Amino acid sequence: MSTIRYLTAGESHGQGLVGIIEGLPAGLEITEEDIAVDLKRRQMGHGRGGRMKIEKDKAQIFSGVRFGKTLGSPIALIVENKDWKNWQTKMSIKDIDESVKQVTVPRPGHADFAGAVKYGHQDIRNVLERASARETAMRVALGAIARKFLGTFSIKIVSHVLQIHSIKNSFTVASLGAKKSDLPFELSEISDLADRSPVRCLDSSIEKEMIAKIDQAKKDQNTVGGIFEVACLNLPVGLGSHVHWDRKLDARISHAMMSIPAMKGVEIGLGFEAGARFGSEVHDQIYYDKDSKKYFRSSNGAGGLEGGITNGMPLTVRVAMKPISTLMRPLDSVDMATKEQTAAHIERSDVCAVPAASIIGESILALVVADAFLEKFGGDSMKEITRTYRAWEKNSDS
Amino acid sequence: MSTIRYLTAGESHGQGLVGIIEGLPAGLEITEEDIAVDLKRRQMGHGRGGRMKIEKDKAQIFSGVRFGKTLGSPIALIVENKDWKNWQTKMSIKDIDESVKQVTVPRPGHADFAGAVKYGHQDIRNVLERASARETAMRVALGAIARKFLGTFSIKIVSHVLQIHSIKNSFTVASLGAKKSDLPFELSEISDLADRSPVRCLDSSIEKEMIAKIDQAKKDQNTVGGIFEVACLNLPVGLGSHVHWDRKLDARISHAMMSIPAMKGVEIGLGFEAGARFGSEVHDQIYYDKDSKKYFRSSNGAGGLEGGITNGMPLTVRVAMKPISTLMRPLDSVDMATKEQTAAHIERSDVCAVPAASIIGESILALVVADAFLEKFGGDSMKEITRTYRAWEKNSDS
Amino acid sequence: MSTIRYLTAGESHGQGLVGIIEGLPAGLEITEEDIAVDLKRRQMGHGRGGRMKIEKDKAQIFSGVRFGKTLGSPIALIVENKDWKNWQTKMSIKDIDESVKQVTVPRPGHADFAGAVKYGHQDIRNVLERASARETAMRVALGAIARKFLGTFSIKIVSHVLQIHSIKNSFTVASLGAKKSDLPFELSEISDLADRSPVRCLDSSIEKEMIAKIDQAKKDQNTVGGIFEVACLNLPVGLGSHVHWDRKLDARISHAMMSIPAMKGVEIGLGFEAGARFGSEVHDQIYYDKDSKKYFRSSNGAGGLEGGITNGMPLTVRVAMKPISTLMRPLDSVDMATKEQTAAHIERSDVCAVPAASIIGESILALVVADAFLEKFGGDSMKEITRTYRAWEKNSDS
Amino acid sequence: MSTIRYLTAGESHGQGLVGIIEGLPAGLEITEEDIAVDLKRRQMGHGRGGRMKIEKDKAQIFSGVRFGKTLGSPIALIVENKDWKNWQTKMSIKDIDESVKQVTVPRPGHADFAGAVKYGHQDIRNVLERASARETAMRVALGAIARKFLGTFSIKIVSHVLQIHSIKNSFTVASLGAKKSDLPFELSEISDLADRSPVRCLDSSIEKEMIAKIDQAKKDQNTVGGIFEVACLNLPVGLGSHVHWDRKLDARISHAMMSIPAMKGVEIGLGFEAGARFGSEVHDQIYYDKDSKKYFRSSNGAGGLEGGITNGMPLTVRVAMKPISTLMRPLDSVDMATKEQTAAHIERSDVCAVPAASIIGESILALVVADAFLEKFGGDSMKEITRTYRAWEKNSDS
Repeated sequence: MSTIRYLTAGESHGQGLVGIIEGLPAGLEITEEDIAVDLKRRQMGHGRGGRMKIEKDKAQIFSGVRFGKTLGSPIALIVENKDWKNWQTKMSIKDIDESVKQVTVPRPGHADFAGAVKYGHQDIRNVLERASARETAMRVALGAIARKFLGTFSIKIVSHVLQIHSIKNSFTVASLGAKKSDLPFELSEISDLADRSPVRCLDSSIEKEMIAKIDQAKKDQNTVGGIFEVACLNLPVGLGSHVHWDRKLDARISHAMMSIPAMKGVEIGLGFEAGARFGSEVHDQIYYDKDSKKYFRSSNGAGGLEGGITNGMPLTVRVAMKPISTLMRPLDSVDMATKEQTAAHIERSDVCAVPAASIIGESILALVVADAFLEKFGGDSMKEITRTYRAWEKNSDS
Repeated sequence: MSTIRYLTAGESHGQGLVGIIEGLPAGLEITEEDIAVDLKRRQMGHGRGGRMKIEKDKAQIFSGVRFGKTLGSPIALIVENKDWKNWQTKMSIKDIDESVKQVTVPRPGHADFAGAVKYGHQDIRNVLERASARETAMRVALGAIARKFLGTFSIKIVSHVLQIHSIKNSFTVASLGAKKSDLPFELSEISDLADRSPVRCLDSSIEKEMIAKIDQAKKDQNTVGGIFEVACLNLPVGLGSHVHWDRKLDARISHAMMSIPAMKGVEIGLGFEAGARFGSEVHDQIYYDKDSKKYFRSSNGAGGLEGGITNGMPLTVRVAMKPISTLMRPLDSVDMATKEQTAAHIERSDVCAVPAASIIGESILALVVADAFLEKFGGDSMKEITRTYRAWEKNSDS
Repeated sequence: MSTIRYLTAGESHGQGLVGIIEGLPAGLEITEEDIAVDLKRRQMGHGRGGRMKIEKDKAQIFSGVRFGKTLGSPIALIVENKDWKNWQTKMSIKDIDESVKQVTVPRPGHADFAGAVKYGHQDIRNVLERASARETAMRVALGAIARKFLGTFSIKIVSHVLQIHSIKNSFTVASLGAKKSDLPFELSEISDLADRSPVRCLDSSIEKEMIAKIDQAKKDQNTVGGIFEVACLNLPVGLGSHVHWDRKLDARISHAMMSIPAMKGVEIGLGFEAGARFGSEVHDQIYYDKDSKKYFRSSNGAGGLEGGITNGMPLTVRVAMKPISTLMRPLDSVDMATKEQTAAHIERSDVCAVPAASIIGESILALVVADAFLEKFGGDSMKEITRTYRAWEKNSDS
Repeated sequence: MSTIRYLTAGESHGQGLVGIIEGLPAGLEITEEDIAVDLKRRQMGHGRGGRMKIEKDKAQIFSGVRFGKTLGSPIALIVENKDWKNWQTKMSIKDIDESVKQVTVPRPGHADFAGAVKYGHQDIRNVLERASARETAMRVALGAIARKFLGTFSIKIVSHVLQIHSIKNSFTVASLGAKKSDLPFELSEISDLADRSPVRCLDSSIEKEMIAKIDQAKKDQNTVGGIFEVACLNLPVGLGSHVHWDRKLDARISHAMMSIPAMKGVEIGLGFEAGARFGSEVHDQIYYDKDSKKYFRSSNGAGGLEGGITNGMPLTVRVAMKPISTLMRPLDSVDMATKEQTAAHIERSDVCAVPAASIIGESILALVVADAFLEKFGGDSMKEITRTYRAWEKNSDS
């Protein structure tokens, strides 16, 4: 069913991250700079820990690209760990004589406990290194390629932060219909605007409160989560399908979003609010503009997806992130080696990573949408796909 | 990665539904009666339309079972459409001379519009017949087999309705920790208790309000949605995995839940509420009971999943359902044949299907969990799997 | 990666066979008669046993088709077992009180032994019923749909029998290049010509010897196998891919062919003979016809596949079938219940099924090629795919 | 269905090759030296071109392993191109100002032509770099991990060369039954013995003829192919399955073998010879040894697979390799840019690579068998899998 496949590898403090993406067409222009943009955006945000200063992530394109264009062959990316020299003993690939301190006290909320039990690891580091959100840097890098692909067809993905702890911005793309004339910006500008805010909030007064809340949490040696929104603009009608359960685009998006570490909820369009309204207040009535010969809606409760298929309206997703599991004032836990009650292990970490998560969400959505796009339009080269897409645009009654 | 595969087929008013499930072990006892129980539960609930009286769904086991036990070969199920005689012309497989009235006005909220554009159908019936929630009857039937499998290992899946429109029951399994002594029932009894209520609500006074709300919607020719909770009890630690994004059990559950028609939101554990709390209020501290030699938690904000892996606590999911898209007082739409503004098509439908959706959610969860269980424990026969599982229980430090 | 998915179910003497195929476009014309043609061809051939007289297979289209055209939704087919009334006790889905004679002596060469060990079955019937080649009737039925799809683009699949036991026909499609002027028939007529022969042999004098060999084997209570060739004509350049190992079309074809029961060898183009020649005698030199603006070859040692990609020449596959495992003069075996040496179980069976296997090979190839075709050209409706294909033909330099 | 997934990336003259393998358990001991052994074996053999002297391949384990043991997380390997400095302009990832000579004349037999048409490449280097057999170095590296895994359970994979051009060794593992007493070596020693021969031939007089044939081809600026045999020893009964077409182990092996560049034929057990014999001469009769309580066969025509399932006998595969497509006395071809007839492009290449191919075949088989093994026995750590396997051995009637 899927057209794109990708695997990622790499531990948080290992030599680096590796990713391979397979199934993209030939002839797509892509540079390391294109990827660097999103990696940098992922590293920003108020509330990040010390590691963000070390990193300055850079993805090297290792294969699959020649003279700035994809070959059609698998693309491999490598993001080196800039701090590797400090970890090469603790994370040695080879067996070493030296004894390395083990982590034996799991952090509540993290994969530590369940991962150690599942894989039979005594040293929880063997779990936490891969369970770390560090891994998402590679997904952001891969997503940047998907985003570049979609951009060729004027499809754009944006995001912003809606909520940090109890501080909320009431604006959502999901609440908009076709008429957006009263907005002081274009939807396509949302990410650019959000990028100017250290918490990626579109409202500057709410931004201040969010920052204050993060600072408070930091002072209290606590952590905070929040909610972000991702939207995909200018989509053709017809990506995803109702014909089989696993083809539904909302289902595939939910899978991908929930696979970001620390995510606990996903909503499409009105989401949970849809459950509290009457049908007449939820569904987006259909109109036709005889001049442009296009259908339109004046609301977007569906979040751009009906029957698991894009309907031409902005696709909107909201995702809830729990607070980071590593607290500097650690929670109660048990030493799995001794079974003694003790405080959870502490690992270098952030106080708040919701702004970063919103960038990850963009990348993830790019991968899912690019996959569905290729599924519908086929093609092995950009030239071929563009030809097919233009012909579709001309012939589609949508 | 997955062990179980299944495909379903069938249109709402076609000859029936067919499903094939592949990857289950040999030696599992299963009868048509086992399946009938869940099919019946799916058909109940206050607010269902006329079709529920016609149906009396019955799944025939067509292959893969002999003398009451699975063979290890694919299992095929067939659910016949009891009303087929009234539809055999309109849904004829063969081409017919007679002209059949086409549906050309899409219902807002349904797959009608996007599906017609995607597949190039002039008659929207070609879309709506498969996009109908009728298809879920087969998934419930297949899920009943997965449930039977899990039951062998004392794993139980329960559900109840939390909310219909604005009427909410505040009780959730997600809010409970290890100590449940103040509950007037066992968690494992939840589905039995819910089944006694026409809206599957555990609180009888709230139930009355829910029923009133549905009746009001019906009177107003409107529809209502809501929220339900599904929980999986007595799970071993270690199903799902943090090692690769698409292995995470929460991601796979979200995929499956969102693939149920009309679902717009999914939450694991605290879900969106986790975004509004401090880390210290979200994560479930870890304790060890030296008598039973078992770890335990006194809260369950994680909903039984940490790092995408089961942690031994009840796995809890909440799912939001939008109101049914077919309104008897139809919404504005456009005739796709003429481009004229008109009222949306009306198709026989329900006012509220949240109770049914909760049963579907149970079945879906059973399929996902059984898959992850087989992935971890392997085995080709019940005898083999049981041997492996017992050995694991004996040796696992969890 | 794949576009088409299909699952089949059903035991040899159960109620019937079921298949679901998912991923085909909307708007493809298909009738039960289209499918019946290939099912009938599969049932013919000199050397078939008694069952072929009972069967008269007919596939019922159960879903996914309306008014003679595919809907884009999954297509379910059912082939009923006409002899079910004689088996409903022995193959009862439900547990029965009656004791049914078990098969406990495995047939050498059949799945009996390994299947019984794997799934822990005491009664080998629980294995042999699904391992039977009866299952291929459903794959032929599904393949008939794929064939119909390909036919829309003038792609045709043909086959004939090359060898039965030691009796060989030296003609192969694989040995032909672009110039076929000396052939007394068109390549596209091969299947029609073969269908007129009871052993599907294109040479009538060799046909006689083949029949005699089968008759001899029957008289000796023995069985014979052989070799058949399948070819796919009029393929576009570019199906399959070299970019990742599992995308190679020759690999996917080999997978599918070897999955037919009793197949022990697969060759593409020159096959094993390529290993015995010099490079200068194997590779197909490339020429260009300036009038038609087409490339051509005067030989076809590659069998139409270079680098796992179709190159525009006829795709040719040869497949070796071992003799049927059930001998009327049974081989030595062991009663698995008692461990006593005894003669293998006898199940109603054929003496030779190579002609039938060649039809199965055609169907299998149709499924693989249709999948690769949809992968390259995308599209959700026949109209859309045809538009894309025509544009490709116009623009492709091949 | 599958447990193991792997993707590879990298062009022949790019920076290197990358591979990620996912789905292996935790706790498997693996070192770069384990992998180096097979990489070195792949580089040997009489008839290799200049590149083999440059390379000295070394796979770096980049992730997924700590202190010499797998973590359960994806394992990434990198094989650097030692000659990269000479190619960094011609294969530059970034666009460059300089003009680089394009390859526009496809080599008959190679992916050149079909790949260029498929992906719309003007420079055939964009195809040949990925279509090169260089890619198999990564599959050998990944296969070394699978082989290490299987070795833990005493499962061993061996290979040797049967034929180079017309020079054949008549000895095959496939021709042996349970009684091998007359062999001057153990089956498990085959690879070690073959490794001592520059053509991996077990018979020293035939070896001489093979070498002479390669030398002759080299002198004639021609190339030669051949046939090799791979066998897997000490397998448990029950890997693979008859229950669904794509689960059959012979089918999966054929897929994997045919995906090695230049392979044109695959045989299991007797292969094509099975088609020329009577059933009584093909099928392996079944006996039981009451002392060891084990079943056995005195022949192995099935090549260890019945019904797509391992039957406990050595699994044997023979694979035919066509001669290398690059000839120093090039074949006729067409310049795709000008359409003028000319001689095919010449790329540095080997005269004969059959010995290398046999090593690749071993690695490929290791990956397929490890996957099927994990499918049957499940488990997340070596400890867990070993426990399950030992219990199975104790309880299995095989």
